[in-house]
Amino acid sequence: MVRYLVLFDTPPDPEAFDRHYREVHVPLAKSLPGLRRFSISRAPTSVRGEPYYLVAALDWDDMTALQEAFRSPADQATGRDVANLAIADRVRSMSFELEDV
Amino acid sequence: MVRYLVLFDTPPDPEAFDRHYREVHVPLAKSLPGLRRFSISRAPTSVRGEPYYLVAALDWDDMTALQEAFRSPADQATGRDVANLAIADRVRSMSFELEDV
Repeated sequence: MVRYLVLFDTPPDPEAFDRHYREVHVPLAKSLPGLRRFSISRAPTSVRGEPYYLVAALDWDDMTALQEAFRSPADQATGRDVANLAIADRVRSMSFELEDV
Repeated sequence: MVRYLVLFDTPPDPEAFDRHYREVHVPLAKSLPGLRRFSISRAPTSVRGEPYYLVAALDWDDMTALQEAFRSPADQATGRDVANLAIADRVRSMSFELEDV
């Protein structure tokens, strides 16, 4: 399993962000081919350091499936929509293989 | 399902960190009561911004189970061992409920 993890710091306008994220961005991301699971965090609470505002985890079967999704027209539309979230550079995202330990 | 997410920036001594994490810290954390799944990242690759060095996700059935684990003697031992990872403040961690979208 591979994961694309997206970490959002608190947006300038949380209410507008939440609305656009739920109503537009999530449906766009859900159209990515091969997506197996898409989960988001409810109200992260800090244990160490500053918590992120929102954590999104999108899972694919393997790196080939994720790379195909990232080359798809659905990904281009989802990527363009990030600008509409008005989060500027308050987002970090990365992909990795999951290893169960 | 609730998740405890731990985000490590690159440690001062990655080799020593990796060894202690794998050989000591993971076995301690795996003794936490009620833990359902424990996955770590293999070589995170950036999509936006700086990738974390290591991402750990520990899952419990619900917030009650996670809170019980966090009050257990196993958690005290795991928490004390964080100092041995020699990561100083290069770690952010948070807990949250997962919502499938």
